[in-house]
Amino acid sequence: MENTPTPNDILAAAARIAPYAVHTPLLEHPELGERTGGRVFLKLEIFQRTGSFKFRGACNRILQIPEQDRAKGVVAFSSGNHAQGVAAVAKLLGIPATIVMPADAPRAKIEGTKALGAEVVPYDRVTGDREAIAAEIVAARGATLVRPFDDAGIVAGQGTAGLEIACAAAERGVALDAVLAPCSGGGLVTGIALALSRESPLTKVYSVEPTGFDGMRQSRDKGERIAAHAERLSIADALMAPMPGKVPFALAQQHLAGGFAVDDEALMRAVSFAFRRIKIVAEPGGAAAIAAVLSGAFDAKGKNIALVVSGGNADPEIVSDCCARFPNP
Amino acid sequence: MENTPTPNDILAAAARIAPYAVHTPLLEHPELGERTGGRVFLKLEIFQRTGSFKFRGACNRILQIPEQDRAKGVVAFSSGNHAQGVAAVAKLLGIPATIVMPADAPRAKIEGTKALGAEVVPYDRVTGDREAIAAEIVAARGATLVRPFDDAGIVAGQGTAGLEIACAAAERGVALDAVLAPCSGGGLVTGIALALSRESPLTKVYSVEPTGFDGMRQSRDKGERIAAHAERLSIADALMAPMPGKVPFALAQQHLAGGFAVDDEALMRAVSFAFRRIKIVAEPGGAAAIAAVLSGAFDAKGKNIALVVSGGNADPEIVSDCCARFPNP
Repeated sequence: MENTPTPNDILAAAARIAPYAVHTPLLEHPELGERTGGRVFLKLEIFQRTGSFKFRGACNRILQIPEQDRAKGVVAFSSGNHAQGVAAVAKLLGIPATIVMPADAPRAKIEGTKALGAEVVPYDRVTGDREAIAAEIVAARGATLVRPFDDAGIVAGQGTAGLEIACAAAERGVALDAVLAPCSGGGLVTGIALALSRESPLTKVYSVEPTGFDGMRQSRDKGERIAAHAERLSIADALMAPMPGKVPFALAQQHLAGGFAVDDEALMRAVSFAFRRIKIVAEPGGAAAIAAVLSGAFDAKGKNIALVVSGGNADPEIVSDCCARFPNP
Repeated sequence: MENTPTPNDILAAAARIAPYAVHTPLLEHPELGERTGGRVFLKLEIFQRTGSFKFRGACNRILQIPEQDRAKGVVAFSSGNHAQGVAAVAKLLGIPATIVMPADAPRAKIEGTKALGAEVVPYDRVTGDREAIAAEIVAARGATLVRPFDDAGIVAGQGTAGLEIACAAAERGVALDAVLAPCSGGGLVTGIALALSRESPLTKVYSVEPTGFDGMRQSRDKGERIAAHAERLSIADALMAPMPGKVPFALAQQHLAGGFAVDDEALMRAVSFAFRRIKIVAEPGGAAAIAAVLSGAFDAKGKNIALVVSGGNADPEIVSDCCARFPNP
């Protein structure tokens, strides 16, 4: 499934996942508004089932697996949020799920995946080949591989978050100037950009990635898919894809207005801000769009903007550490 | 102002505070639903300005101070959330605020109050008399005392949360069987009950208090205002009023269906559940209604219920401690 989705695919996805997914709130945050000189809305994907937006794409994709293939199960490789999304959908539909996960993924994500009844196959992030392990399982069982982002059905599913942002803004009479969303392989941010290209065409959509993993920004600037070169891991365990997917990149070239990179300090500050001032649990990757605004990388002055908080699956120790290091974010 | 408010006062309050207050979301939580066998909605007052519902009442009350008295300032005594509510309203309206606070209040609350520009006067929770200290300031400056709950304007302001619950449920076509709200002096839960008595008269409203501070429950059972006798402090620093206010108690006799008491362990479990499974920061008192459901004190099976999460001003250390003690809440 490497064809590119259309806005109509997102409308179809919204109808398909409606019985299962949470319609998450778009919350105005006055303090972020006062601080930036704009109006700031937060799309709280932390409230999606499994604590991240990933449920949307997984649900849309798995519901399109032909009935006769479902019993053979689904397989996914993921650092955690896609894992939980796939496992939760599989559980709701009574399908077996096997997830290939890095052994050093956050405990909250590994435990969350197991608690959803999935079989977890650990691999070493540095020496292992997760795609090869998943391919073996697919071959052996006839299971369906559910890719994390390079799939039209996945991207259309993530795009339903963009549809909801457009509707919620319109209901309040707010014309959004910009939407910022965290980006790893690019399924979420390009799905949102695709949705807004029809629902709110004057709204600019930007990717936010960790420094060193800003493959989407670099690829878009260069006009071809390239990998970013990180010197070390990022604290944003969910955003460490070095290169955008083919499907997301094709959409990015048409629909993204630009991209930002944020460093670990900005991400940790944003996690502390999320806890202390917004009163939410944001994982470091989930807080990337907040980080882009708090760090000044994106200037919200005089603008109406929406920041996607894409996931909240952080271990308490990480959040506590961010709060201790940045008591006044 | 010891007259009792009416449902019309709540409608007037809603119009009065609309330019300042956040219309907080009512979020359905599928996991709490699956766990309890009901449909569970969360009214997220953690997203109100200053991180708790208290902004509503303070805003409604202070906006009714005559113009010529405003410059003399406002005074409040509070363990923290009312303090921040009053300070934030005063700041928005350009009025000086003085807050009498226990010296052992959570740092998040003391710092939050100071950051809002209020003068903080500390007192000893055991040996000091906060009402006397506040009365002195009122006498010396001609300032207006803004009571935490025993005031019709305050209760009507808190009741706007009930109005919003009723509207949001109706929009989704959900008939609420019950609403549970944390209770200290009783302004919030009785304001909500008053609102629902007109907007959704078949919905039962229940108070939830910490064990030993369940003065509302005991008073309602006995038919007269009595003080609960606690053997030690509760972890719910915001819910330690031993006796309901006169105004709230008058409303409680007419409009509350009953009450529950929850112990510290149930509150700590609920704080951990809020962090780990809901992805929100709830302070121990703010999580009381969640605790009543998780502990089984209230049986939600087959019911549509709303739980008010009344505040999120917890120090990170407390949340972290609750999460460590209850890893699987």
